[in-house]
Amino acid sequence: MGRPHRDALFPPTAVQRLTRHVDIDPQLVAEDFGQVPDLATVELLITSWGCPPLDDTVLARMPALKAVVHAAGSVKHHVTEACWDRGLLVSTAAAANAVPVAEYTVAAVLFANKRVLEIGGLYREHRAALDWSACFPGFGNYRKTVGVVGASLVGRRVLELLRPYDFEVLLADPHIDAATAEALGARLVDLEEMLAVCDVVSLHAPALPETHHLMDAHRLSLLRDGATLINTGRGSLIDTQALTAEASSGRIHAVLDVTDPEVLPQTSPLYSLPNVLLTPHIAGSLGGELERITRSALDEVERYCAGRAFNHPVTRAALTTSA
Amino acid sequence: MGRPHRDALFPPTAVQRLTRHVDIDPQLVAEDFGQVPDLATVELLITSWGCPPLDDTVLARMPALKAVVHAAGSVKHHVTEACWDRGLLVSTAAAANAVPVAEYTVAAVLFANKRVLEIGGLYREHRAALDWSACFPGFGNYRKTVGVVGASLVGRRVLELLRPYDFEVLLADPHIDAATAEALGARLVDLEEMLAVCDVVSLHAPALPETHHLMDAHRLSLLRDGATLINTGRGSLIDTQALTAEASSGRIHAVLDVTDPEVLPQTSPLYSLPNVLLTPHIAGSLGGELERITRSALDEVERYCAGRAFNHPVTRAALTTSA
Repeated sequence: MGRPHRDALFPPTAVQRLTRHVDIDPQLVAEDFGQVPDLATVELLITSWGCPPLDDTVLARMPALKAVVHAAGSVKHHVTEACWDRGLLVSTAAAANAVPVAEYTVAAVLFANKRVLEIGGLYREHRAALDWSACFPGFGNYRKTVGVVGASLVGRRVLELLRPYDFEVLLADPHIDAATAEALGARLVDLEEMLAVCDVVSLHAPALPETHHLMDAHRLSLLRDGATLINTGRGSLIDTQALTAEASSGRIHAVLDVTDPEVLPQTSPLYSLPNVLLTPHIAGSLGGELERITRSALDEVERYCAGRAFNHPVTRAALTTSA
Repeated sequence: MGRPHRDALFPPTAVQRLTRHVDIDPQLVAEDFGQVPDLATVELLITSWGCPPLDDTVLARMPALKAVVHAAGSVKHHVTEACWDRGLLVSTAAAANAVPVAEYTVAAVLFANKRVLEIGGLYREHRAALDWSACFPGFGNYRKTVGVVGASLVGRRVLELLRPYDFEVLLADPHIDAATAEALGARLVDLEEMLAVCDVVSLHAPALPETHHLMDAHRLSLLRDGATLINTGRGSLIDTQALTAEASSGRIHAVLDVTDPEVLPQTSPLYSLPNVLLTPHIAGSLGGELERITRSALDEVERYCAGRAFNHPVTRAALTTSA
């Protein structure tokens, strides 16, 4: 991992905890395996954002390697087919990383239905009380319909966090059955059915070839007038050009924490639309939230050392339908 | 109640439900008791925002009056001492009205700790990715300390809704003991102790003589650098001039749905500060959320007709410490 991630994720207290369980050189931070002269005795790798792919060449230098504990979300960038062929045990902190994304989403849903930011903007502009119910007929959070696209770790946490509110919650996911959806507190529907009835739709699908431009011009056109589309997943889930057209007309609202491309071009209208909240990929773990990831990873290291199974194992099969 | 509130709260379906239980003139909407020629047989009043005080003169015209069902929050404006002396039964929809205020608050807490709106504003301005952790050290929602001022209906609902998050939650309320606070999911502290340790402080105290300028210059100065003050209660809880000074310096952040005065003067710096989210008293029930109040009031009417006690009775004693 890069030095900034190492410093943020593994402050001295975390390194101290590590040294109680494993032989580690506390000074060593490798951004590239070429920087480490001797990898022969490495049994466990702690990885994070920026880890290079664990390809055949790298793996050949680590004959003792048994496990990879990833102190971040997706392992797809660095855990290669060769790792699975070797039978490596792999763990991820994706569940810990899902929490802040779900929290951002819930706040975005509550503010979107109530038009908080739009009304705040109008109040700032006019410096007078307008007839908000006339501006936004039927606004508010009572009995609104919220659609969650993808029963991913983030999607499931969003479903949990939405339970205390007076929402009808729908779930679209091709890999889930109706009973599972119901157990998660949602009604399973087709994506296109969902788009036509929801007040808010939030994307939590993984970036896979089959989810590229999941929200294309046609699907965007199915959203109800005044609906809000939230994307905290990956920018590639949405056709940016089609979304820009729909949002620029004012027909739909959007909360976008991820975009395609990221950062958006300086000329993008999405920067200045009053019906769009645009944030620069901050919903995931940042600042003080990194400690949740650190704790998750250190717990996994301790479990490995104690001969116990990981809390959050990753399997080759699971990666075909998840991030 | 005023005609707009009548139309919003009692659409034809609600009036139909009423007519199944009570003798009512569905055409009659009184904004003033002088508009109603005959009040002699009135047993139950349904009131809402804008009801004039039920003083001796008005009460003298309603010898049969037994109960007042208020389809809104506080009854203080219209339920007079004379009503209590008469032994009237009084009910309020304050619990229903508390829900959207609490929902707004939870979203405001989550966005405040993560600096979502500040970062969104900077991204909009610079149209580039900055080092957000350097801009806002330690930001995020993990293990932050949230202070709730006032175990009011709103305060209690906020405490409930904050439970699924990784917060330490503190409660300040002079009328609550430590065991009650603990049962509500919070640790009871003095207000001034709370101000010194919290990342976010949210005001849910009633507007009473003793809570006027609860947050004065001294108390505001106790807030930590970078703390966020949320006010969805009443503007008079905060010394606006002192808050304007603290927020203008950038030392603290604020989310203000209510202000003193309301609307703020057009020259107020609070309209344009990047560290202030200002909304025009919208956290309470509006738009589609009025239906929750309607249902609450109709349930009370039905209970009264069935000879049952109100779900949400108001007592003279309770009003001395609540809104």
